[in-house]
Amino acid sequence: MHNFEFYNPTRVLFGRGTIPQIGPAAAGEGVSRVLLVAGGGSIRENGVYQAVIQSLTAQGIDVVEGWGVRPNADVDTARQLVQTARDQGVDGVLAVGGGSVIDTAKSVAAGVYLEDVWDCFARQNGPARALPILVVLTISASGSEMDSWAVLTDREQHRKWRMSSPALFPRVTIIDPGVQTSLPWRQTVNGAVAVLSHLCATYVVGSFEETALALEESLMRSVIKMVDRLQADHADYGTRANLAWAATLAMNGLSSSGIDDGDWSAWSIESAISALHPDVAHGAGMAVILPAWMVYLHDSNPGQFGRWAASLWGAPTVEQGIAAMKTAFQRWGAPATLSDLGIGAGELREIAFSALSQGPLGKLRTLTARDVVELLKPVL
Amino acid sequence: MHNFEFYNPTRVLFGRGTIPQIGPAAAGEGVSRVLLVAGGGSIRENGVYQAVIQSLTAQGIDVVEGWGVRPNADVDTARQLVQTARDQGVDGVLAVGGGSVIDTAKSVAAGVYLEDVWDCFARQNGPARALPILVVLTISASGSEMDSWAVLTDREQHRKWRMSSPALFPRVTIIDPGVQTSLPWRQTVNGAVAVLSHLCATYVVGSFEETALALEESLMRSVIKMVDRLQADHADYGTRANLAWAATLAMNGLSSSGIDDGDWSAWSIESAISALHPDVAHGAGMAVILPAWMVYLHDSNPGQFGRWAASLWGAPTVEQGIAAMKTAFQRWGAPATLSDLGIGAGELREIAFSALSQGPLGKLRTLTARDVVELLKPVL
Repeated sequence: MHNFEFYNPTRVLFGRGTIPQIGPAAAGEGVSRVLLVAGGGSIRENGVYQAVIQSLTAQGIDVVEGWGVRPNADVDTARQLVQTARDQGVDGVLAVGGGSVIDTAKSVAAGVYLEDVWDCFARQNGPARALPILVVLTISASGSEMDSWAVLTDREQHRKWRMSSPALFPRVTIIDPGVQTSLPWRQTVNGAVAVLSHLCATYVVGSFEETALALEESLMRSVIKMVDRLQADHADYGTRANLAWAATLAMNGLSSSGIDDGDWSAWSIESAISALHPDVAHGAGMAVILPAWMVYLHDSNPGQFGRWAASLWGAPTVEQGIAAMKTAFQRWGAPATLSDLGIGAGELREIAFSALSQGPLGKLRTLTARDVVELLKPVL
Repeated sequence: MHNFEFYNPTRVLFGRGTIPQIGPAAAGEGVSRVLLVAGGGSIRENGVYQAVIQSLTAQGIDVVEGWGVRPNADVDTARQLVQTARDQGVDGVLAVGGGSVIDTAKSVAAGVYLEDVWDCFARQNGPARALPILVVLTISASGSEMDSWAVLTDREQHRKWRMSSPALFPRVTIIDPGVQTSLPWRQTVNGAVAVLSHLCATYVVGSFEETALALEESLMRSVIKMVDRLQADHADYGTRANLAWAATLAMNGLSSSGIDDGDWSAWSIESAISALHPDVAHGAGMAVILPAWMVYLHDSNPGQFGRWAASLWGAPTVEQGIAAMKTAFQRWGAPATLSDLGIGAGELREIAFSALSQGPLGKLRTLTARDVVELLKPVL
């Protein structure tokens, strides 16, 4: 077991009907004029926007609205919103949405103190401070609602990179799983696959970290069980709630404590794909890449992959475990090949080059551009 | 799944050789003159005391020493240390020890702002503020190193009560599992049994909180596995580390999130015993009471007790699960009967009366004094 520091000061308010607590929570953090960051407008349709505005204004908090964050959030939108935040003199940033919206909000909260927030991503040098960050979560997937990370894409340069800093922990996050019952099925599956991928990234490099590994197994099992249940009944609140809480815990640093980093090469390969194809959701990309990545790499830590196959899928071999995972993804309707994502053989080299753009790739084993191409070929 | 709030701002520094970080950590919290709270002197023998003093003084922090906390920490010691803290003008409190030392330190940190800190225990009304609390943990058991609770005993009145407040979260906790390799075996077992008991208190009232229940199962399984491994090799660092981290996570509010409170009646019955017999360690008392309590109450939530028996012990019935747990406790050398603890039939009524001293007892079902006596009779 490796030495580690665990610190996570985010206050989570979880459950049915919790959204009206956002106003008092923001006021409690000393926020009087907030930039509300949001996506394309679905929060107007499910009542979340109205509940948020009502709660904030009841506390006398001024609201400046910043719409238009797209999936695979881009740095240009963040830069524009930094300008808005400065012009309007806000003293807090509220994300109402999923991972892209939250990561944009984090970037804006830090960006008001910086010349260009992209420098933090490009130099992997987290910001020292940020405005208070608040979150009302509408899609459980990225875990950004309770972590210190943000991911943005530079669409021109085809770079999807991340930054981290204690300043990026949200002060307060509200999770009402009830609002996720109206999510398209595809988004629910994408979120769940993303969560499983994040847990795998640390789990597969483990060995003797029994407590952490057992926690990760329990979260992975809970996610799989809940998605299967939701497929039978999309609207069941309890199932949504358990899936949402597992998703948040999967990325808040806790379940991987004591494991030495993780192997984030699958994440980087998917990020390279999303950077080239911003219409590909992270979870959709991971549904294709995760099995291929496991096939290519399981020999590097066979004991741990064997444990994964046995404890998650009841499978006697890694190969059978991977097959069982692919069957589950297929049952859920996730994409299975790169061509399902609209990607052809001609792009493999560019994907590999982009995945390697921030230096060496992989921990189980260092991957070359050729490795990335070979890894992806079987799932063309 | 019930609504909940999760908030835990304690910063944990975990691992081998982490104790010298206490000085910089204290300085980082603005502490310049600290009250060091400790027990009977074992920390002088294992080098922990020397490492702590060296690290604090290297940062220019004045140290006022407050020794003499006993197992089942009493309020009189806390009151004396409050006086010391006031007289010496300290601006922070550092616990170097296990649960009793930490809970005394918490009580002192809050007590400097109060007329009498015992009022918080007696009225179950947590303190509004406290001096910064720091911890160097030497025994994993109570979870107090990463929670907002404190437990003290009034030895004259035979009352062992608890208080809670966000002000009681330690700012920084250092856990070096290496220092626990020299613990007497009995204390290791007492700690592990205490942890299992705490997890059971919330687990057995659950039903549909799949994510939380899976987390609790993984922690309970990890504890059982690690104690069995330690019995073969007391000094193995990795095993100690996994046990220590599971113990901390068991009580920090995380694994029980979404479960509606818990049934703390076994805890209250044991507290009544420890209040009458301060030489009985909490974990030793729980080793006797937990199985008896389960036998008496499992009918109140048979599905969940059945899940406990199957998933923890691979047992087809609750009765066989309880028997398997008793076998494990016996294998570890834990006490099995009240007479092992030096308690006779004549004390059962007084124990019952004391357990009920703060109002109705139990959540699975409300227990009367007669219930407590009947529950304990089979383990006389």
